[in-house]
Amino acid sequence: MLKRYRDRIEKELAAILVDTGLAPVLAESMRYALLNGGKRIRPSLMLAVCEMLGGNAERALPFACALEMVHCYSLVHDDLPAMDNDDFRRGKPSVHKKFGEGNAILAGDGLLTEAALILCRQNGYDSAKNVIMHAALEMASGQSYDLNEIDRTGETLELLHRQKTGALFSAAFCAGAHISGRSDLAEQFWKTGADVGLLFQMTDDILDAQKDTAEHKFTYVTFYGVNTTYTLIEEIEKRILSILSTFNNELSGELSSLIKEISGRT
Amino acid sequence: MLKRYRDRIEKELAAILVDTGLAPVLAESMRYALLNGGKRIRPSLMLAVCEMLGGNAERALPFACALEMVHCYSLVHDDLPAMDNDDFRRGKPSVHKKFGEGNAILAGDGLLTEAALILCRQNGYDSAKNVIMHAALEMASGQSYDLNEIDRTGETLELLHRQKTGALFSAAFCAGAHISGRSDLAEQFWKTGADVGLLFQMTDDILDAQKDTAEHKFTYVTFYGVNTTYTLIEEIEKRILSILSTFNNELSGELSSLIKEISGRT
Repeated sequence: MLKRYRDRIEKELAAILVDTGLAPVLAESMRYALLNGGKRIRPSLMLAVCEMLGGNAERALPFACALEMVHCYSLVHDDLPAMDNDDFRRGKPSVHKKFGEGNAILAGDGLLTEAALILCRQNGYDSAKNVIMHAALEMASGQSYDLNEIDRTGETLELLHRQKTGALFSAAFCAGAHISGRSDLAEQFWKTGADVGLLFQMTDDILDAQKDTAEHKFTYVTFYGVNTTYTLIEEIEKRILSILSTFNNELSGELSSLIKEISGRT
Repeated sequence: MLKRYRDRIEKELAAILVDTGLAPVLAESMRYALLNGGKRIRPSLMLAVCEMLGGNAERALPFACALEMVHCYSLVHDDLPAMDNDDFRRGKPSVHKKFGEGNAILAGDGLLTEAALILCRQNGYDSAKNVIMHAALEMASGQSYDLNEIDRTGETLELLHRQKTGALFSAAFCAGAHISGRSDLAEQFWKTGADVGLLFQMTDDILDAQKDTAEHKFTYVTFYGVNTTYTLIEEIEKRILSILSTFNNELSGELSSLIKEISGRT
């Protein structure tokens, strides 16, 4: 369902890093990291939520692009040898493999800065700006929990993933609500967005477990086992669909289908 | 002269990273990087410029703190092994020596994000926000020129240092003008700020050359030699003092003394 949003976002992102006046290697590595064939799910959700609530998706577009840039910067830094040490991202060399570590650090810094700059350039919508940068900070906090030793409990598992994965999905839903003029829904939508992020994380954990790549990681599957994870997925799916059903329009229907698609991909 | 501003900024910075709700290691490493005994020259200049132009330094304070956080994030990432590989900063272990590389990357990311968040939280003053984040992007570009091979010409030397060092000083002067209500001076003050940054860089280059630590680097001294660098310092100092003298008040006098102090420290 999100294809129309994805195409619109792709076009907008491609236009951002043109004629930047930045150092050539920085500009090239930022473009490489940003225009990497990603699914654009977070910004697409922001546009969809905004329209579902009667808002104008075009107005939300720069905020959605900023959110995607935050996501892309986090992937670049997360792939670094000192973090997850991944040589590949979507079948292509990760940024540090292609440009070197120093340039990858700068590319991530540049994307985060450009995201902030795009937000600062928008007139008004301060709450939406705030929400996106607050989510970026929570995400870094989640990365920190992931990187350092923590007690492995159900509480820390949820905290880690609510911050690391959930926060940017929260920002998609919550900023979408603010931009549509429905700030009264912001708090609820922050939670619903986090639920969507967790749904994503849990199904990812199941897919990873099937590939046998995450035995030592602290995931829903390694902590709860597959069966309990499926039960949690059902509960969360139900909670999200119940919120969406209250809107009862074409977009809430499409969003509900997407949620079922996510939970059904395992 | 800047002691009163420095003390005010120090107090404000110390209050920012308290009860953050962030992962403990992230919060601690961010505090370590931020509260590191720095001179706080960039934010102090912003407050001084704002007051020189009749503005309220207290109103500029959060913007000044955001600027200092951008500066501190850049030091953390610049010290990393893949960049300048410095084990010490102001006589203490650099962030990655104390917390490890992964945590240092996150600490820098966190400081940059917190800076953007502070800016997003301010009502109005969009031009000042814009200027600070634009400067942060230029600084990253300057770092990129510094990291990668470039033709060594007078033009690239100036471009590198105008971006790497000058941009944050430009932001101090230019945002100070915006916040004081004198946006008509913004363009001039961007240039004057960059001049102050270059003055800093040139005198640093001379001090480094005396310690014999920068032979292979692309500095004013290695490119032009000491004598020409002194001539350039004189020219730039004259240009800055001439602008400041037009304001003819106590603060412009104090700022002029500071400029003379900077150029006299070699």
